[in-house]
Amino acid sequence: MFPPSIKKLIDLFSKFPTVGPRTAARFVFYLLKLSKEEIENLTGAISDLKSAIKICPLCFNPFQSEGELCQICANPSRDKSLLCIIEKETDLLVIEKTKKYNGLYFILGGTVSRLKKADIEKLRTKELEEMVKNHPEIKEIIIAVNPTTEGESTALYLERLLKPLAKKITRLGRGLPVGGELEYADEETLGSALEGRK
Amino acid sequence: MFPPSIKKLIDLFSKFPTVGPRTAARFVFYLLKLSKEEIENLTGAISDLKSAIKICPLCFNPFQSEGELCQICANPSRDKSLLCIIEKETDLLVIEKTKKYNGLYFILGGTVSRLKKADIEKLRTKELEEMVKNHPEIKEIIIAVNPTTEGESTALYLERLLKPLAKKITRLGRGLPVGGELEYADEETLGSALEGRK
Amino acid sequence: MFPPSIKKLIDLFSKFPTVGPRTAARFVFYLLKLSKEEIENLTGAISDLKSAIKICPLCFNPFQSEGELCQICANPSRDKSLLCIIEKETDLLVIEKTKKYNGLYFILGGTVSRLKKADIEKLRTKELEEMVKNHPEIKEIIIAVNPTTEGESTALYLERLLKPLAKKITRLGRGLPVGGELEYADEETLGSALEGRK
Amino acid sequence: MFPPSIKKLIDLFSKFPTVGPRTAARFVFYLLKLSKEEIENLTGAISDLKSAIKICPLCFNPFQSEGELCQICANPSRDKSLLCIIEKETDLLVIEKTKKYNGLYFILGGTVSRLKKADIEKLRTKELEEMVKNHPEIKEIIIAVNPTTEGESTALYLERLLKPLAKKITRLGRGLPVGGELEYADEETLGSALEGRK
Repeated sequence: MFPPSIKKLIDLFSKFPTVGPRTAARFVFYLLKLSKEEIENLTGAISDLKSAIKICPLCFNPFQSEGELCQICANPSRDKSLLCIIEKETDLLVIEKTKKYNGLYFILGGTVSRLKKADIEKLRTKELEEMVKNHPEIKEIIIAVNPTTEGESTALYLERLLKPLAKKITRLGRGLPVGGELEYADEETLGSALEGRK
Repeated sequence: MFPPSIKKLIDLFSKFPTVGPRTAARFVFYLLKLSKEEIENLTGAISDLKSAIKICPLCFNPFQSEGELCQICANPSRDKSLLCIIEKETDLLVIEKTKKYNGLYFILGGTVSRLKKADIEKLRTKELEEMVKNHPEIKEIIIAVNPTTEGESTALYLERLLKPLAKKITRLGRGLPVGGELEYADEETLGSALEGRK
Repeated sequence: MFPPSIKKLIDLFSKFPTVGPRTAARFVFYLLKLSKEEIENLTGAISDLKSAIKICPLCFNPFQSEGELCQICANPSRDKSLLCIIEKETDLLVIEKTKKYNGLYFILGGTVSRLKKADIEKLRTKELEEMVKNHPEIKEIIIAVNPTTEGESTALYLERLLKPLAKKITRLGRGLPVGGELEYADEETLGSALEGRK
Repeated sequence: MFPPSIKKLIDLFSKFPTVGPRTAARFVFYLLKLSKEEIENLTGAISDLKSAIKICPLCFNPFQSEGELCQICANPSRDKSLLCIIEKETDLLVIEKTKKYNGLYFILGGTVSRLKKADIEKLRTKELEEMVKNHPEIKEIIIAVNPTTEGESTALYLERLLKPLAKKITRLGRGLPVGGELEYADEETLGSALEGRK
C-alpha cells in the first residue's frame, strides 16, 4: 500500500516504544511536511546522540560531560551509602524530582515476568552484583521497581541475589496514592496504608 | 414521555447514589418484569430496613442485634485505645477486610471541600468531639479519609478539632498502590513511598 | 459481614441491571438515611407500578391510560404500515426522540447470541409472528436491533422468520456516528458510510 | 535535568504528532540502546524520505514512482468522475481498504474549527478550487471529512466554495457504527440511521 521509502520508515518507527503502525505512519506524514533544514536538524540530533552521550559505568545513566562518571555518581555531596535500583532511566528522573532521595542509583534495564535465565540475562544483574561488591560503603539498597507483578518477581530475584552482599535491603512503601479512594483500594494497599500510618 | 407512575419512580431512583435518569428507567423496566411476589419481597425488605437496623450511638455504624452497640463497639477483644475516623459505612468494610486493624471506628458521614460552617455541620463533628471526650482510653486517632482534595481539607479540620483532646493523631500512609508505576506517580506519592520504605 | 436485613436488600438490589454488590451496598446506606415518609413514598411507588402500568398487547410497551392499547398503538395519526422491531423499552424512547419515525413498534424483549431454541423462546418471536400475521396493513418491517454481534444474529433470525409474512424488511443504516473519525472506523462502517452518501 | 544532546532530541520528538515530552524521552532512551548501524539505518531512511517521495500535484498524496502523478491519479481504471475530499493521508488509506471507492482523492491537509481567513489558508482550498476547475469530468464531489465539529464547519465551507463548480456534492452517510448501541446513539445519528435504512 505504502511506497517503499515510507514503508521502511514506518517499520523503523514501529519499533519505538509505545508506537504502533498507525502512529508510525503519522510520524512519516509529519516528516514529509518538514523542510530540508528541519529534517537535517533531526537526523543530525539523532546521529550526534551516540557520540555525545556516555553511559555511566557505575549506574548506567546516560550523561554528557567531561568526566568518567555521570553527574550523580560524580557528585561528592550525594550519599554513597544508599543505592536505589530502578528499572529505567525515566524512573531516575521522577525520583530526583521528589527531592526526597540523595543517594546513588543503578538502572537495571528492565524487569522480568518469569525468572528464566534467558530473561534475567537481559537485565544488568551481573553489573549490579559487581557494583555492590566493589562498593562496601553501601549500607542500604532500595529496590525501587514498580509494585506490579513483573516488578514483584524481579524484586524477589534481586533480594535473593543481593542478600549475601548487602547490610540492608528495603522496598518502596505501599499506600494510598494522592487522589486515591479507600473504597477502590485493594486490601494489600490499604493494609500497608494502615500499617504505615504516621 | 413516560407514564406518571413510571416517571415518579424514575425520579425517586435518580436520587440513589451513582444513578442517573437512564439507569433509573432501566430499573423501572426491570421492576415491571418482576412477579407480584418478587415486588412484595423487595418493598418488604426496604420497609423492614429502618425498623430492623439500629445505628450504633458510638460509631454510627448500622447494625442489627439485641444490644445497644454495634458488633465492633460491643466486642471486648477490639482495641479500645485506637479510633479510626472514616467517611462512610463502606470504608469501614474495606478496612475490616484488610484484617490489619483491630480498633474502633467513627463514621463521619461525609467530607467537606470548603471549611464553611454550614458544610461542616453536615458532618458528625459534634458527636465525634463528644465521643473522644467521653473515651479517655483512646490513645491514637487515625484520620482515614480519602487522600483527595476534599479528604485533605476535612483531615486538616479534624486535626485542629481533635488536637486538644487526643494524645496521638495519625493519617494513612501514602505510597505506591499495588500495580502502580513510578513513572506515573505524582511527586508527593513517590516521595512518601521513598520515606516509608522498609 | 453485613447485618441480615442489609444483606438481603443488597442481594435484591444486585439483581437490578448495571448494579453490583458495591453499588447495592451504597443504595442500602442511602436508604438508611431517608426518613420514614421518604421510604413509604418509595415502596408505595414500587407497589403501585404493577397495578398502574399495563403492557400493550400489541407492542409490549408499558403504558398507563384508560384504553386497551398504548398511546402509540392507539394513536390514529401513527403510520400503521410501518413496524419497527426493537430490543427493549428504552430503545423505543430514543427512537421517539429523533422525531424521524411515525410508525408502530414491537418490543422483542432481548437479543440472542446463539440461535438455540431455548434462547429464542425467551424473546417474543411467537407474539411478533402473530402480530404481523394479524396486521396485513404492515408494508415495511424495520429490524432496529443494535448492530452488535448479538443484534446481528437476532436480526438474521428475524429476517428468516418474517420473510414469508412481510412485503419489505429493512435494517437501520450503517455509517459514521456524529463525532466519529474515519481513521478509527472499521471497514464495514466506512464502506456503508460511502455507499450511503448523500 | 537532561544533558543538552538528549534535551534537544526530546524537543524535536515532542513536535511529532501524539508525542509528549515523556514519550519523547522514552524515544531517546530507546535510541541510546541502538547500535551504530541501526542509528545510521534510521537517519538514512529519514534523509532519503524527502528525495525519494514525491507529492502528487493533483491529489497531494505522497508517492514513489517514475511518473508525475501518484498511482491512484495515474491509474486509467479509476473513475475520474468521482472526487473524494479527505483531511489527511491516512484517511485515504482507510477508504482504500474498504474497497468501496474507485474514484480520485484530494488531501485537504487539515480541518478548521473557525472559518477565519488565517485558518483556512492553511488548508489546500486554492489548490482544490483549481483542481476542480481544471477537471470538468468530475461529476460528484464527496466531502469525506470527519463528522466532528471541526469537520462539519470545514465541510460547510467547502460546500459553499465548490457549489458553483460542482454538479453534485455529497457527504458520507451517518448511522450506527458496527458494534454501536441505539441506547447510546445521539438523536442525529439515530435519525440518520432510520432515514438511511435499507
